Amino acid sequence: MPSNDHPWTHLDEKGRLKMVDVSDKAPTWREARAVGRVLMAPETLRRIREGEVTKGNVLEAARLAGIMAAKRTWELIPLCHPIPLTAVEVSFEADPDLPGIRIRARTKTCDRTGVEMEALTAVTHAALTIYDMCKALDRTMCLDGIRLVHKSGGRSGTFSVEEDS
Amino acid sequence: MPSNDHPWTHLDEKGRLKMVDVSDKAPTWREARAVGRVLMAPETLRRIREGEVTKGNVLEAARLAGIMAAKRTWELIPLCHPIPLTAVEVSFEADPDLPGIRIRARTKTCDRTGVEMEALTAVTHAALTIYDMCKALDRTMCLDGIRLVHKSGGRSGTFSVEEDS
Amino acid sequence: MPSNDHPWTHLDEKGRLKMVDVSDKAPTWREARAVGRVLMAPETLRRIREGEVTKGNVLEAARLAGIMAAKRTWELIPLCHPIPLTAVEVSFEADPDLPGIRIRARTKTCDRTGVEMEALTAVTHAALTIYDMCKALDRTMCLDGIRLVHKSGGRSGTFSVEEDS
Amino acid sequence: MPSNDHPWTHLDEKGRLKMVDVSDKAPTWREARAVGRVLMAPETLRRIREGEVTKGNVLEAARLAGIMAAKRTWELIPLCHPIPLTAVEVSFEADPDLPGIRIRARTKTCDRTGVEMEALTAVTHAALTIYDMCKALDRTMCLDGIRLVHKSGGRSGTFSVEEDS
Amino acid sequence: MPSNDHPWTHLDEKGRLKMVDVSDKAPTWREARAVGRVLMAPETLRRIREGEVTKGNVLEAARLAGIMAAKRTWELIPLCHPIPLTAVEVSFEADPDLPGIRIRARTKTCDRTGVEMEALTAVTHAALTIYDMCKALDRTMCLDGIRLVHKSGGRSGTFSVEEDS
Amino acid sequence: MPSNDHPWTHLDEKGRLKMVDVSDKAPTWREARAVGRVLMAPETLRRIREGEVTKGNVLEAARLAGIMAAKRTWELIPLCHPIPLTAVEVSFEADPDLPGIRIRARTKTCDRTGVEMEALTAVTHAALTIYDMCKALDRTMCLDGIRLVHKSGGRSGTFSVEEDS
Repeated sequence: MPSNDHPWTHLDEKGRLKMVDVSDKAPTWREARAVGRVLMAPETLRRIREGEVTKGNVLEAARLAGIMAAKRTWELIPLCHPIPLTAVEVSFEADPDLPGIRIRARTKTCDRTGVEMEALTAVTHAALTIYDMCKALDRTMCLDGIRLVHKSGGRSGTFSVEEDS
Repeated sequence: MPSNDHPWTHLDEKGRLKMVDVSDKAPTWREARAVGRVLMAPETLRRIREGEVTKGNVLEAARLAGIMAAKRTWELIPLCHPIPLTAVEVSFEADPDLPGIRIRARTKTCDRTGVEMEALTAVTHAALTIYDMCKALDRTMCLDGIRLVHKSGGRSGTFSVEEDS
Repeated sequence: MPSNDHPWTHLDEKGRLKMVDVSDKAPTWREARAVGRVLMAPETLRRIREGEVTKGNVLEAARLAGIMAAKRTWELIPLCHPIPLTAVEVSFEADPDLPGIRIRARTKTCDRTGVEMEALTAVTHAALTIYDMCKALDRTMCLDGIRLVHKSGGRSGTFSVEEDS
Repeated sequence: MPSNDHPWTHLDEKGRLKMVDVSDKAPTWREARAVGRVLMAPETLRRIREGEVTKGNVLEAARLAGIMAAKRTWELIPLCHPIPLTAVEVSFEADPDLPGIRIRARTKTCDRTGVEMEALTAVTHAALTIYDMCKALDRTMCLDGIRLVHKSGGRSGTFSVEEDS
Repeated sequence: MPSNDHPWTHLDEKGRLKMVDVSDKAPTWREARAVGRVLMAPETLRRIREGEVTKGNVLEAARLAGIMAAKRTWELIPLCHPIPLTAVEVSFEADPDLPGIRIRARTKTCDRTGVEMEALTAVTHAALTIYDMCKALDRTMCLDGIRLVHKSGGRSGTFSVEEDS
Repeated sequence: MPSNDHPWTHLDEKGRLKMVDVSDKAPTWREARAVGRVLMAPETLRRIREGEVTKGNVLEAARLAGIMAAKRTWELIPLCHPIPLTAVEVSFEADPDLPGIRIRARTKTCDRTGVEMEALTAVTHAALTIYDMCKALDRTMCLDGIRLVHKSGGRSGTFSVEEDS
C-alpha cells in the first residue's frame, strides 16, 4: 500500500523527472513474473484452437514478440535502466471460460535494479501480437488484467500475489 | 463478429506466418482510436493528483512514451507494416471511481493499411510508463480494458464502439 | 578515383561515401527476390525435420526474424534509404541433397529506390536465426549462396537469374 | 518432438520456442571468430581495388556496418541474449582467386553465453554493405561461406576449424 | 523573430505535449541545411590532417554516423514525425583558423513536414563521432555553432542565413 | 599513418577503423559530466519561461530525450561500446544573459570504458529536442559550447575543467 513517506523514485524533490541512480545498489539476482489476458469472442478463440498449426504459429509469433520486446524495455520505457536479461519466458493458456488467452511471463537478471517492467513488457507485446494476428476476425478483443504477480531480489524484497483472480 | 469464412490475414493456407501483402490496396486516410486504463490503489491516485508538477510530469512522460512507441509499432509487432504516422495523440483522465487513470490514443495516416495497432501500442506504452513511475508506491496496479474503440478508412470500413463501458 | 564507365552510386567524384539522392526518381513499383541456403550436417537436418512442431517452430522463428530485419534494412545498411515495404515473404525448403535449408525472400514497395537489399537482409537474418537455433547441435553450419535472383521496377530495369544453381 | 540425445537449446520439451535461461552459468571470457566472402565478377573486384580511396571507403563502410550490427545482434536474432561486447574486429582481404573479398570477424565478451552469433552477424552485415555499395556495378555478387571458425569459453569448450577451405 | 501570436506547435492550449497533426498538409519537397563545427586544439587538427588515411577514416566514420542518425531522427527526437528521407549529405572542411572541423549537412524529402531536425541530427552525430574518435588525444574539444542555415518547402516558406559567421 | 607519440584509439596501425578492445581493462566506476547551451532570441526564452506548464513540459521532454538517447549512445556512435548506465541526469537553467538554456548532464557506470560520449549524447539530444519544440518560434537558435567538463575513473584518470566559460 502506498504511503506518504514513500518518495517518488522517478521524480526529484521539485517533481522533475529522473532516472533512479542505482550506482549504490549491489547486483543481486532479480526475478519477476507478470500475467495478463486477451479477451475475445468465443468464436475467435475457437478459430485459434481448431488447428494445431494455426494455434502454434499465432502463439509462437506472440511469444517471440514478447521475448524480443522484453529485451528492449529500457529503450521503450523512458526511465528504465538497460538490463542484460539472463532469462525471459512467455507462456500461454487458452481458457474458454474467459474466453481468451492467458499470458504469463517470467524475467530474470543479476543486476542493480529489478525486472518487473521487463516482465510486464513481455506480456503486453505478446498480447498486442495476438491482437494483431486475430484483428481481422475480431475487433472487440481486449487486453486485460496485465499486472505483476511476483518479484524477488533487491532492497524492496519479495512481492507475491495470486496469479488468477 | 468472427466468421468461418474470414481468412486469417497473417497465416497462409498452410498456417505459416505471413505479413499481409498490401501492394494492391490504395493509400487512403486511416484513423484509429484506442482506450485503456491503469487501475491503482486510491492512495496512489491521490499521490499522483496532489501536486500539479507531479501529475504533469508523470503524465507527460507517459504521453511521450506512448507517442514514441506508436511510431515504432512496426518494429515491435512482428507482422505490422512500416507506417509514417501523420498524427499521434495520447490523453489522460484521472478517474477516482476506478480508481485510476484512463488513457486514450488516436493515430492517423494516409497509407495502404490501418493504424489500429499503433493506437493500441500508444495506450500500452503510456500505461507501462505510468506503472513504472508509480511502482515503488504501488505494485498492485493493473493495466486493463485496452481495446480499439474506433477505426475508419480502408476496405473493412468503419468500426466504432462505446468508449466507456 | 572511381572511373567514368560506370559510376559508383555510393561514392562521390572524390571517392567519399554518399547516400544516393533519389529525389529525382519517380516512385514506381519495385520488387526483389533473393535466395540463400544454410548448409548443415545430415543429422542436423534430420533433427529439424523429424518433428512437425520442431520444424515448424524453427522455421517460423527464422521467418519472423527475416521479416522483421527486412523492415529495418535502412537502419542496418548505412547507405540504404528508409523504405515502407508493402510486402515481405520468406519461405523455406528442407533439401536433403544439400543437405540443408533453402531460403527464399520476396520484397515489394512503391518507392523511389529498389528493395534488393531488403530481400537479401530477409534471407541473411532468417539464415542467422536457423544457425542460432541449431548451433548447439552443429557448429559447422554454413550460410551460402546468398544472392539476388530477381529485381524489377526502377530505371535499371529487370534483372533475373536462375534460382537454383 | 525433440529427441533426447542432444537437446534443442531454443525449444522446450513440447517444441515451443524459448530463450535459454543462462542464469546458472558463470560469466567467463568468450571469444568467437567467423569468416565469409563476397564473390563478385573480376571487373567488380578490379574496380574496388583500383583506387586507394575507393577501396578504403567501401571497406571502412562495411567494417562499421559489421561492428554496429554485431552490437545489436540480440535485437535482430530473436532468442539471443543482450551481451555487452568488449571487442569487435572486422577485417577484409581482396582475393583475386575467388574473385572477391574475404571477411573475418572476431568478437569477445565476459558473460554467461557465447558470442558466436555476434561474430556471424558482423560478417553478414559487412558483406551486405559491400553488396549494397557495389550493386550498381554487379548484381551477380554472392555472399558465401559464412561460418564459425573458432569459439572458446563456456561449458561447451573450444571449437576450431580451418579458416580457408 | 518569435512573436506572441505564434502558437507553440508541440504544446496544446493547456501546455500539454503533442505531436503536430500534419494530416492536412500536402506533401511537398522539403530541404534543409545545417552547419556546425568541432573546435579542437591545433595539435589535434594537425594529427587528423597529417595522414590521408587517418583523415579519410575519421571523417568517413563521422559521415556514416551522421547519415545513419539522420534516418533515425524520428526515433530520437520525441515529437518528430517518421520521414522517408530521399537524400542526406554530410561534408567536412578542416579549418586551421578555428582550429577544427566544419560540418555541413543537407537533407531532403517529399513529405508533409520539414527536415530541419534531420539536418541538425546529421551534424550533431557527425560531430559526436569526431569527438569520440579524437577524445584520447584531446578532451577539450567543443561542439559549437550547430544551427540551421536553410530550409525550403512547406507552409512557412524559405529560411536562409549566412553559413559562416 | 598515425604517429607514435599518442596512439589513435579508434584506428589501427594502418589507419583502419577499429573499436577499442577493452577486454583487458578492469571494470571500475566511471563518471562523466558534459555541458552545452541552446542560444535563442530573447523573445523565445521569454516565451518558454512565461508559463510554468510550458517551461516544465518543454524541459521535461528535452530531459527524457536526453536520458533515452544516452542509453542508446552505443547504437548511434559507431565505435562506442554497449554500456549499462547506472545513472543519467539532465538538468537545465534558463539564462537571460545568453540568452538561452544551459544544459548539464551526468552519466555513471561500472564498466571497462568511460561514459563521456553518453554524457555528450544526453546534452546534444536534450538540446535538439528544445530546438524542435521551439523551432516554429525561432529558427535562429544555435547549439553551442557542448563539451566535457569532468570525467573520472579508468586508466586515464580524472579530467576537470570549469563548467562556465
